[in-house]
Amino acid sequence: MYLKTPFLTKEKAQEIIKEFPTPFHIYDEKGIRENAENVYKAFSWNKGFKEYFAVKANPNPFLINILREYGCGCDCSSKTELMLSKAIGATGEDIMFSSNDTPLEEFKYCNDLGGIINLDDITHIEAVEKACGRLPKKMSCRFNPGGIFQITNSIMDRPDDAKYGMTPDQLYEAFAIMKQKGVEEFGIHAFLCSNTVTNEYYGVLSKLLFQLAVDLKKALDIKISFINLSGGVGIPYTPDQKPNDILEIGENVRKVYEEIFTPAGMDDVAIYTEMGRFMMGPYGALVTTAINEKHIYKEYIGVDACAANLMRPAIYGSYHHITVLGKENAQKDHTYDVTGSLCENCDKFAINRRLPEINMGDIVYIHDTGAHGFSMGYNYNGKLRSAELLLCTDGSTKLIRRAETPKDYFSTFDCFDFHKDLISE
Amino acid sequence: MYLKTPFLTKEKAQEIIKEFPTPFHIYDEKGIRENAENVYKAFSWNKGFKEYFAVKANPNPFLINILREYGCGCDCSSKTELMLSKAIGATGEDIMFSSNDTPLEEFKYCNDLGGIINLDDITHIEAVEKACGRLPKKMSCRFNPGGIFQITNSIMDRPDDAKYGMTPDQLYEAFAIMKQKGVEEFGIHAFLCSNTVTNEYYGVLSKLLFQLAVDLKKALDIKISFINLSGGVGIPYTPDQKPNDILEIGENVRKVYEEIFTPAGMDDVAIYTEMGRFMMGPYGALVTTAINEKHIYKEYIGVDACAANLMRPAIYGSYHHITVLGKENAQKDHTYDVTGSLCENCDKFAINRRLPEINMGDIVYIHDTGAHGFSMGYNYNGKLRSAELLLCTDGSTKLIRRAETPKDYFSTFDCFDFHKDLISE
Repeated sequence: MYLKTPFLTKEKAQEIIKEFPTPFHIYDEKGIRENAENVYKAFSWNKGFKEYFAVKANPNPFLINILREYGCGCDCSSKTELMLSKAIGATGEDIMFSSNDTPLEEFKYCNDLGGIINLDDITHIEAVEKACGRLPKKMSCRFNPGGIFQITNSIMDRPDDAKYGMTPDQLYEAFAIMKQKGVEEFGIHAFLCSNTVTNEYYGVLSKLLFQLAVDLKKALDIKISFINLSGGVGIPYTPDQKPNDILEIGENVRKVYEEIFTPAGMDDVAIYTEMGRFMMGPYGALVTTAINEKHIYKEYIGVDACAANLMRPAIYGSYHHITVLGKENAQKDHTYDVTGSLCENCDKFAINRRLPEINMGDIVYIHDTGAHGFSMGYNYNGKLRSAELLLCTDGSTKLIRRAETPKDYFSTFDCFDFHKDLISE
Repeated sequence: MYLKTPFLTKEKAQEIIKEFPTPFHIYDEKGIRENAENVYKAFSWNKGFKEYFAVKANPNPFLINILREYGCGCDCSSKTELMLSKAIGATGEDIMFSSNDTPLEEFKYCNDLGGIINLDDITHIEAVEKACGRLPKKMSCRFNPGGIFQITNSIMDRPDDAKYGMTPDQLYEAFAIMKQKGVEEFGIHAFLCSNTVTNEYYGVLSKLLFQLAVDLKKALDIKISFINLSGGVGIPYTPDQKPNDILEIGENVRKVYEEIFTPAGMDDVAIYTEMGRFMMGPYGALVTTAINEKHIYKEYIGVDACAANLMRPAIYGSYHHITVLGKENAQKDHTYDVTGSLCENCDKFAINRRLPEINMGDIVYIHDTGAHGFSMGYNYNGKLRSAELLLCTDGSTKLIRRAETPKDYFSTFDCFDFHKDLISE
């Protein structure tokens, strides 16, 4: 078992709650920085390495700006994500636009910002030409090898069931067309496995993509500028999962690089990544207060957060570790369902979880909400999304997104007369 | 197979799209009205019958106001839903507050509006007293029988796994305490099965609740004013499901009523329902345009809507019938995955669906989105939620909710300096 330690003590949480009532997501600046530093260290052997943070995982400018200090760019998948990148000054090659089923206007918007367009489909060559007038000089294509993609005996995925990317034949065809239409530098992108908690994934993927790059270069006489390993490097949600070692992962990729690219005279190819979960997941927590207890056929603890704040347990049955602050070392001698207030029976942060006795008012710390936590929030049951806070390296706390209010919730009725009645309490 | 017919022709859709670009949810006023009328007809034998529309299913004031013309009230589960009800003039006994894991202030807010509070848990007696000063004269409690609840041989549910309601012992105890504390009229509420497509459910549930009511009245000498059968009456999402017959359902409840309540001298008990899906589900559709086609290991059609507009297929794998407008009678000789643009492989409205050939620009009509469609929408991947339209009985179309804009999406950053950069395109 691996220790899962909150980055917040009960005392600190109580101090914060005086100013910012629960529920809220809070992020650990120190953890984010240490991890980002490690990621860049792991790939320091590669001159052009760049991590494009998957904005979808956590579209908060304050957090992305921390990553930007280390050299990270923005992996965007929609116009608003591009707008956010632009607003924080991430333009040009600081943007990777990895989108699918893309509207024409978004290609144009990305191109106007100078971002790198990563084509999901061969038909998009024409779409980009139509949207932007001509193809940009540097472009990328997304690859889907089909069949089964095997990392270890027990870990595999089925790319042929995924909607993403081009087949090998299409990739050759696409690159040939793009070269002919004036593209001068090429990248290859693939996302074949989600949330892998093994150090092997990037290495196995690299082998596939580096060889493909060598073959494409030979066949088409093109300049391959980068390989984008995309995301897929996961985090341990449960205490029995061994965390990924990014240094070992970087080393695995380096070995494959030296094995394939160096002899092929391609050691100027840059490695890009698009990690979201790994960059932010463990450094966020949902802090909520126990406000109800219920004893029926099971024991329930009701908290003031719900699936509107963190949807993964409700919709995927995902495990998120829970610590009752101040009871870190207490016996876990109670079995609880920890529930939110949605009129959905699936709105449970934990089911049959062994925890210390929870008293009303206890602060419940839900781990690993830094990625796909706030960003997947919704307003079902009229619930409002929470504030986001940053626990700064100097120990202070900063509001980095205000909580929604009823006025936000009702905003799309603001063109109607009754709107004033909606927002008058 | 039962015909699933769009309430929109291709010509009408094209006309609407000129003014309101896709994607949008559109609702059929005529269908909503006919169904509401039928619901009231089905229960016309019961003097006090009232349907409390489950606001969570579709929190749109225009739609709820249509239902209000037939006598419907609002089933609310949160403060914003109560605010919405208040704004449209639904107060007093037009509100049923069926919430769980409820914050104190919401009890008070409901009570101030004169709404009926439906207690989910016995501990909430104290909570309501604390929040409101004293218990209201008329209150309801939510019942959970535990064990297995069997409707037919093949349809059952496990109330003992549900977080809702009180055990039988607790219900007796709660009513005794509430009587002693001055409550004069009581209701009993239970939600034991979701989306049943059988006419039996309400009848079976009634048997359980009516007998309980008779026993409670005898044991405690209290006035039972209403039985709230809650929701659970479903709709046929797939063409092979036979639609519920609300007239038969009402008749089933009547028989049980006459069998149990009439001999007990309790034929003044009102029947309440809290249907959401049945009231609105079939009368909404998500209208979207085919904007991408992709041929890899499977055939994909990309549309301009995504799971942000309709989440059920992505997270529950739910079936929603699809009609390609203008091709209602064409051969279904193609097999497609119909996808949205989220960077989530689950963002597919249909998988391996037999459909007519789809050309770019075709209008794709996704059925049965009237309940838990728009209301479960989110902003994942920075996607914006769509407009809602009403197809009026007179054939005209009316905007009943504007589409979100980037300004809405970024609103919770409006307290920061960079906000102006976010919303400048």
